[in-house]
Order: sequence, then C-alpha cells, then structure tokens
Amino acid sequence: MTLYLVGAGPGEPDQLTVRARRLLQVADVVVHDRVISPDVLALIPEGVLRIDVGKRPGHRLAQEDINGLLVHLGRRHDTVVRLKSGDPLLFGRGGEELVALRNAGVAVEVVPGVSGAVAVPALAGIPITHRGMAATVTVVTGHGMEGTEPVDWDALAQLGGTLVVLMGAGRAREIADNLRAGGLPDDTPVAAIRQGPGTIEQHRGTLAELRRDGSALGPPLTLVIGAVAALDVTADATLAGDDDGN
Amino acid sequence: MTLYLVGAGPGEPDQLTVRARRLLQVADVVVHDRVISPDVLALIPEGVLRIDVGKRPGHRLAQEDINGLLVHLGRRHDTVVRLKSGDPLLFGRGGEELVALRNAGVAVEVVPGVSGAVAVPALAGIPITHRGMAATVTVVTGHGMEGTEPVDWDALAQLGGTLVVLMGAGRAREIADNLRAGGLPDDTPVAAIRQGPGTIEQHRGTLAELRRDGSALGPPLTLVIGAVAALDVTADATLAGDDDGN
Repeated sequence: MTLYLVGAGPGEPDQLTVRARRLLQVADVVVHDRVISPDVLALIPEGVLRIDVGKRPGHRLAQEDINGLLVHLGRRHDTVVRLKSGDPLLFGRGGEELVALRNAGVAVEVVPGVSGAVAVPALAGIPITHRGMAATVTVVTGHGMEGTEPVDWDALAQLGGTLVVLMGAGRAREIADNLRAGGLPDDTPVAAIRQGPGTIEQHRGTLAELRRDGSALGPPLTLVIGAVAALDVTADATLAGDDDGN
Repeated sequence: MTLYLVGAGPGEPDQLTVRARRLLQVADVVVHDRVISPDVLALIPEGVLRIDVGKRPGHRLAQEDINGLLVHLGRRHDTVVRLKSGDPLLFGRGGEELVALRNAGVAVEVVPGVSGAVAVPALAGIPITHRGMAATVTVVTGHGMEGTEPVDWDALAQLGGTLVVLMGAGRAREIADNLRAGGLPDDTPVAAIRQGPGTIEQHRGTLAELRRDGSALGPPLTLVIGAVAALDVTADATLAGDDDGN
C-alpha cells in the first residue's frame, strides 16, 4: 500500500513522466486538483474513483481536510495517486501532505514532475537562464501562503537574475511595486504568460508597464521578470543572437 | 526536419517525459552529454547514431563546436534529438544552442524535463518549499559560467528561503564562505546530495560545517541551503511534523 505524490507537469498528457503515466493507469483512486487538464485525467481508466479536491472560491476544501482524506485513502487502497500540477514539492503544499501522511504511517513515494516554473517560460520562447543574462533563477508564488515567511522583495530586487512568479494574476501590480521599491529598474523586461489547454498567450513589456497596468491576462498566470524576458527564441532568434558570443 | 532540445530528467528512464521517450525512440541521431545515464541511452534503438559531446577534463568540445554540429545535423536529418540532463533551459547552456539553431534557420522544439534542482532534493527527502520555512527557491550553479553575470551572494544571503546549488562539488566551501560573509547564519541547515545511478548519498549539516570541511561527496553534487535542508520526510516525518500547524 503506497500513496504516490505525483507531479502532472504543466498540462499536456505527454509532459507527464513515464512513471507518472504508468501510475495513473494502475491507480485504485486518484485525488487531483482543479487545474489538472481534462486530457491528463482522460489517462485514468474508466471506473477508477477520481476525487477533485480543487480549491475554488466559496467551495474550499481546507488543506487539513485534504490531508485527512489522503490518510484515509492511503490506509485502505493499494495504489493511491495524489496528482498535483507541475512538481508536487515546488509550492502547492505537497510537503504538508507528505508530512501528514508520514506522520500517519502511510507509505509515500514522491514522483517529481516538470514544473511550470521552467516549462511555461520555455513554451513562451524564454530560456530562464541564458549566458550573460542570468546567473540565478528565483521562483516565488503570488498567492499569499498562510504561515509562510514573508518574501524579502528588497533582496529579490537586489539579486536580479531571473524571477519567476507562479500564480501571479491577482498580485501582479503589487509585486511590481515591491520590486521597484527595492531598486529593480523600471525598464526591466517582463513577460506575462497564461497557459491554457494547448495554447500560450503572452504579453511582453517592462516593470513600469506592469506597475501601471497590472496584467491583462487572467489565471493561471506566470510572470518572468529579468533580462531573459526580452528574449523570444521561438519567434525572433536574432534578438537573442546578439548575445551568444559567436 | 526538426531538432528537439530535450530534457532527460534527473537520471532514471521512467523520469523522462512521455514525449521525450517517444522522441528517443524515433530519432535519426541523438547528441547527448556525458552525464546522461546508460539506462536512458539504452532506450535509443540499435543502429541509431549517438554522439557524446560530453565535456570532460582534457577532452573538451567547445560550445561553439557543439552548436555547429547541431546545425549541421539539424539540416540533414528529419529528427535530431539533443538530449540534456534535467531540463534543457535551466542552466546547461541549452539557450545558446537554441539561439544558434534558430539563427541558422533550423526548426527547433523545446521539450522540458524534470530538473534535478527539484527532483534530487525530493529524492533525498527534502521538499524545497515548505509552509512556514521557505517562500522562495533560488537555483544557481557552482560552475563558473563564462560571460555570466556574477552572482550577488550578499543578496542571496539576505533573501534566505531555499538555495539550490547545482554542480556544487568544486566550489562548496567558497560558496559557503560567500553566503556567510553576506550574513547567512552559521547554523543554517545544509544538505549535500550526490545522485548516482539508482542511488542517493547525502550528508546533512550546517553552513559552518560546509565552510570548514567543504563537501565529502564528489560530483554530481546538489547543495540545498536553508531551513528545509533540516527536513527528511522520507525517514523522519516528525522532524517536519512539528511545523505543519495541525
């Protein structure tokens, strides 16, 4: 009896790992979030119990209730899959579920997934690291996470490099203000990327524009802030070619 | 005719994405790094040309030569796979290859992979984000990358959160000294993790110990520095359970 904490990757079924796909095909129960795409859920055989614990406005299942449900299922079924968007331990509170399960004596195995923090910028044409442009990548979430240490926006502004903000739709303008206050220049490139089913929408601009207008794109929104956000290697390689040293 | 810039994930064949595995099975040519595991290379059908462009001491193929090779192959074959460890655009100079190929008019598609920056800590029992412990994750590489902006270690020390250092074996002590000089406390937890084929070796300690002793583990070494490096959710969940608020 094992509960598998599985990353579903950024959305498409072929972005699952081989191991994640195999587990979905043999699971007795699958517990998933609201953001998992229908094409991924379609990999689960007919007749297998699926439980959507997605948090939505006015319909919130508390994290403790999710933990309790996972413990309950983990004690009763051979193979339970807890499916989370992206990677299960890069934000998204997978660590808390892992701890609750371990404390209850349920055997758990983590199956890492492709994180949207890396994949969504790539699909939008942005390499989140690029020679001469970014020596560090920092990932942060736009959601307030109760109990989490506050983010030191001054230090982030000072650090520079590439900043990737997950779930940034609701707080885009506030984040931009915080970074500007910390000293990040107004002309710092910004990309706002919304990944829908099979599609990528994006707006490119600057920190000043993000401060003024926020983001026109709704959730799920990924922000990339830093020099690499001026690159678009899918559409216009010469933009980046200036920098490749050849 | 397309060249696929593919992430191989952290090492095991079932950590490849479904898309990456399918591409390996239909490629005309596979160009790979030295660190790709034999089990992953075994997925390539017999008779398919494989080129190891791995950089090793005294036997270095320059990045420009790799770029030139990829352009050459991309113009002559239907399906070329450029296979890189982890994710192709999170360090590892995939962005430069992408730009060179685009500039040469070769069609390229990026296939994101599971990054070792997330997966290696997970396999060692460390959630790189955890409620109340880390609001940010920063990834940096221990290798000097020519032409890259220098890392602002003072800002990194100030930022706190979780710091993941890839390829940290050669510079572990120097990095620890830089972080201490920037104000990161000596008792900050540190995990040094070496992923071998099918195995994880790790040492847990503090920043002070890393400054004094460096790392006893050789490459490929991943360092995790920050509060989460005291967690081991695979072996001792109660260590983390204190913090989960239940």
